Amino acid sequence: MKQNGVILWLTGLSGAGKTTIAQQLENHLREQGYLVELLDGDAIRQNLSQGLSFTKEDRDINVRRVGYVANLLSRNGVIVIASLISPYRAVRDQLRHSTKNFVEIYVNAPIEVCEARDVKGLYAKARNGQIKYFTGIDDPYEEPLNPQITCYTDKETIDESVVKILHWLEKANQLPKLAAIPIPSRNEFQVM
Amino acid sequence: MKQNGVILWLTGLSGAGKTTIAQQLENHLREQGYLVELLDGDAIRQNLSQGLSFTKEDRDINVRRVGYVANLLSRNGVIVIASLISPYRAVRDQLRHSTKNFVEIYVNAPIEVCEARDVKGLYAKARNGQIKYFTGIDDPYEEPLNPQITCYTDKETIDESVVKILHWLEKANQLPKLAAIPIPSRNEFQVM
Repeated sequence: MKQNGVILWLTGLSGAGKTTIAQQLENHLREQGYLVELLDGDAIRQNLSQGLSFTKEDRDINVRRVGYVANLLSRNGVIVIASLISPYRAVRDQLRHSTKNFVEIYVNAPIEVCEARDVKGLYAKARNGQIKYFTGIDDPYEEPLNPQITCYTDKETIDESVVKILHWLEKANQLPKLAAIPIPSRNEFQVM
Repeated sequence: MKQNGVILWLTGLSGAGKTTIAQQLENHLREQGYLVELLDGDAIRQNLSQGLSFTKEDRDINVRRVGYVANLLSRNGVIVIASLISPYRAVRDQLRHSTKNFVEIYVNAPIEVCEARDVKGLYAKARNGQIKYFTGIDDPYEEPLNPQITCYTDKETIDESVVKILHWLEKANQLPKLAAIPIPSRNEFQVM
């Protein structure tokens, strides 16, 4: 009776464009009638991962935890968009192999581009030592070796990246069947 | 467009019967075709809350975190069964008021009964000081003042508690619209 959703896992440097792409994707898919949840790095750190640091060990715990929640949702038909740096390859690969319908999306921009954007002012702080363990500066980012999708956000517009992802999903037959989700009218369901 | 699930929040002392009731409920609802997820205290500590202690502060963080995940699931149509001691009233009440379709179920057995059962041998350890911060021994349990359902597991069988919950849900129109199959009577109910 139940169908799987899909986990769209956006990995990449800070400033590469993960959140922007994630939000556009979310809006678009929700408008189409899909069940969608966006698990964004910052919100996750507040709600699921208070107290975790940015050491490799804690980052891996964070990624596994988001993967656990993403899997709970996607196995109930939800399209999950997870947007977090997730810099370590091994734990990403673990998730990719231990969950169903995991789509690794590499949001790829050269670090010089990300640093020039510096939307949150974090690169400046990392450069002058106010922030430690900053991915790309004094902490590693291990690029995906075999992502299903790569968005080159220094060369593509956000729209182009979003459309690329949507087309991939459609072609790979990875979107849940909308018609299979029984959706009652508002009147049928009574909230107390 | 989308329908809400429901959060069945089982609170009570260790040994009161939360997990047993939760598992029976899960099996039954899943067989009926509902989307169900069981968030059980022990599994949660492994997957979501590694590193949290049993101080009031950390217990509250744990409860909020489970509430966050339960809400993500239930707002996508899933019936969530959360089974955890959750000894503090204030944070339970917070969740009850901040989430939709939150049903507080008090799994109630006198501590003497729970201690006599001592399924996991934890009361013995708490009594001789091997475990600290043990709810009911050297840590408080604040009873729900106004739970929607109370299961008296010292007087009712597990089946009776489960059927009580199912009947309450049906009467309150709290089950998502999926199955039109009537809930079985006490005699028809099959323990798995």
